[in-house]
Amino acid sequence: MAFSVAGFRFAGCAAGIKKVGGLDLGLIIADQPVVAAGVFTRNLVRAAPVDVSIQRLQLGRVRAVLANSGNANACTGADGLAAALSSTEAAARLLELDASQVLPASTGVIGAVLPAAKIEAALPGLVANLSADGAEAFAKAICTTDRWHKIAVGTVATDHGPPANVLGIVKGAGMIHPDLGPAPAPSAAPQGSQAKGPLHATMLAFFVTDATADQVALQAAIERAVELSFNACTVDGDTSTNDTVLALASGLAGRASESALFEGLLPVCRELAKQMVLDGEGAEHAVEICVEGLADEAAARTVAKTVATSLLVKTALFGKDANWGRLLAAAGRAGVAFDPTSASISVAGSCIFEKGTPLGSAAEAIATRGMAERSYRIVMTLGSGPASFTYLTSDLGHGYVDVNAGYRS
Amino acid sequence: MAFSVAGFRFAGCAAGIKKVGGLDLGLIIADQPVVAAGVFTRNLVRAAPVDVSIQRLQLGRVRAVLANSGNANACTGADGLAAALSSTEAAARLLELDASQVLPASTGVIGAVLPAAKIEAALPGLVANLSADGAEAFAKAICTTDRWHKIAVGTVATDHGPPANVLGIVKGAGMIHPDLGPAPAPSAAPQGSQAKGPLHATMLAFFVTDATADQVALQAAIERAVELSFNACTVDGDTSTNDTVLALASGLAGRASESALFEGLLPVCRELAKQMVLDGEGAEHAVEICVEGLADEAAARTVAKTVATSLLVKTALFGKDANWGRLLAAAGRAGVAFDPTSASISVAGSCIFEKGTPLGSAAEAIATRGMAERSYRIVMTLGSGPASFTYLTSDLGHGYVDVNAGYRS
Repeated sequence: MAFSVAGFRFAGCAAGIKKVGGLDLGLIIADQPVVAAGVFTRNLVRAAPVDVSIQRLQLGRVRAVLANSGNANACTGADGLAAALSSTEAAARLLELDASQVLPASTGVIGAVLPAAKIEAALPGLVANLSADGAEAFAKAICTTDRWHKIAVGTVATDHGPPANVLGIVKGAGMIHPDLGPAPAPSAAPQGSQAKGPLHATMLAFFVTDATADQVALQAAIERAVELSFNACTVDGDTSTNDTVLALASGLAGRASESALFEGLLPVCRELAKQMVLDGEGAEHAVEICVEGLADEAAARTVAKTVATSLLVKTALFGKDANWGRLLAAAGRAGVAFDPTSASISVAGSCIFEKGTPLGSAAEAIATRGMAERSYRIVMTLGSGPASFTYLTSDLGHGYVDVNAGYRS
Repeated sequence: MAFSVAGFRFAGCAAGIKKVGGLDLGLIIADQPVVAAGVFTRNLVRAAPVDVSIQRLQLGRVRAVLANSGNANACTGADGLAAALSSTEAAARLLELDASQVLPASTGVIGAVLPAAKIEAALPGLVANLSADGAEAFAKAICTTDRWHKIAVGTVATDHGPPANVLGIVKGAGMIHPDLGPAPAPSAAPQGSQAKGPLHATMLAFFVTDATADQVALQAAIERAVELSFNACTVDGDTSTNDTVLALASGLAGRASESALFEGLLPVCRELAKQMVLDGEGAEHAVEICVEGLADEAAARTVAKTVATSLLVKTALFGKDANWGRLLAAAGRAGVAFDPTSASISVAGSCIFEKGTPLGSAAEAIATRGMAERSYRIVMTLGSGPASFTYLTSDLGHGYVDVNAGYRS
């Protein structure tokens, strides 16, 4: 399947960064400088490419994204910063751009400096491969422990005429508990060495649209859409040092308002978040935890997040066990007031606990059948208040342990 | 090994509550009414025996603790409350006490009403077996998924003369992330049915001392000791509905001040917390996560807890992987400010990351050897501040998934 959005070209190539081989370097180029917005990990420990992208995003319009897998360039200090700068400068020279218009993003091993020389050697071939329908090659090039590459498309309503297009690409499988916010003050990253470091995963997401957008509107829209998608999903509760979301708008289609950009980006973000959670390390299910009936959304989010990150809940999902006791106990430790005697819980469409009373084994058997689906919903009604929040989580089983206890790339 | 503390007798018996059989009902009796203190789960969803014990503890002196495994009597509503009351009333009649002097505690399956009739039938035999050195039988009777029973002893300094004795008994293996506080207002528990419910674990801990203690001093001492032991340990981050800690002081030895009680209880609490974490479901290691160099203890506790509950850290401990990247990334998402470029990390005595620089594979190889020990320490020095905090955690591997994904007792 080929996807394209007017004004953008994509490519992916094998630069030899990943030890296992395969595509590991990707490039997105805008034909003209475009409006750009981004959100970045709130982890205090931030990788060099995150700091460089934060800084360059503040300078104005953007022309390119240079992304790699196989090396996170995190905890690599001055050498890592120099490698992030020199590799994007090499791309800028080839493309005849200003380096400040090239945003880097990296995912892979922590503590090893990005091999800038390998990237520089691969760049001419990468640039030669740029094409309007190269999104799939780019999407593959940023995968690490991902079992498949992830692309989603949608539309953005414009003030007049036909809708604009939006194309989203994400990677991520482990160390997934995004906590993304607007650019913080750049930090000094730890000094690195060439020691082979721990593998870690990350989420990287890139959105391109041909809508015409103000930077402020695009930034606000992506922040709001991320808050309800990537920032509301978890694989293992661990927030990465490299999480990056960038949105680029070429302006070749009609003008879109902030709310239209948000409405257009949200379903694409949610689809990609769902793909990412489904592809969570060792995961077999993506489960929506919907907490409703509370007084305000913040309280509902707190309870939903507590349930979604509960190990006992996640292992029960793996075991296809309609375990209302674990769900209720996790909600009860979230620090939010509710009355357990009026709580109801439904799993995969079957109510198993109603107003404080377990409905017994027949109801649980129906729920258990629903839990065989790849994707289903758990609804916890904790009162009669107006607010709800949905958090997306994966089950946790032996596959997660295998991926994360064995390892080093 | 036999343990005894003047003024107390213990017994354990098989009452047929556990489907797998074995000891499942335990009794502690004080020869005279004794000073008692307790802390209970802060989970909003509390089991019937927790509410009954909270209420009776406030009435004054205590004569007995009636504890069972195999049934948590949680989410069992009015029937569960009636079963907790009637079983303790039956014990009181046999022992010729007031029922308000008997504190119940339960652990096991959620959502099934405590089988009071089985308990009443077993009580005469249980009472007949009471003996000063029966602590081991009691300790075995409260085990659920525990691989071994857990007892620790210590001493409490008195104002004059020889020290008093303290004996502690704990059970717990899963659903271990105690968050214990002084008695809250009793809640209405959810209505229950006789439906077979989910298995869950809990921590129950009982301390007896022959020290002479004021109730207020004993309460303050157990709260402080728990805060630095049970409330600073985790197996899976899930706080139970039944967590209970009770401390009884017979007054047959010398008078102990609050600080002497605290100093005496703390090492016993820590030893029992360590035993519990070592016996964490599927766990092979108990690891102290010591975070130091921060400005205040609350910040150090927050970082230590975040690292101790990180799935990526816990799977790395299982894999004996000296993974400074995961440790640093977990610390970085705790919401506490520190400078990663001055951070140092040592694992099992080997420094692997010093002032922001990884020390390479030789240092990591030494750490990896240390990680084969059942118990070791990770020290994260995040600055030059005066405060530190140590959190105790277990590794997480296939055993945890096996115990919690298969299940239902």
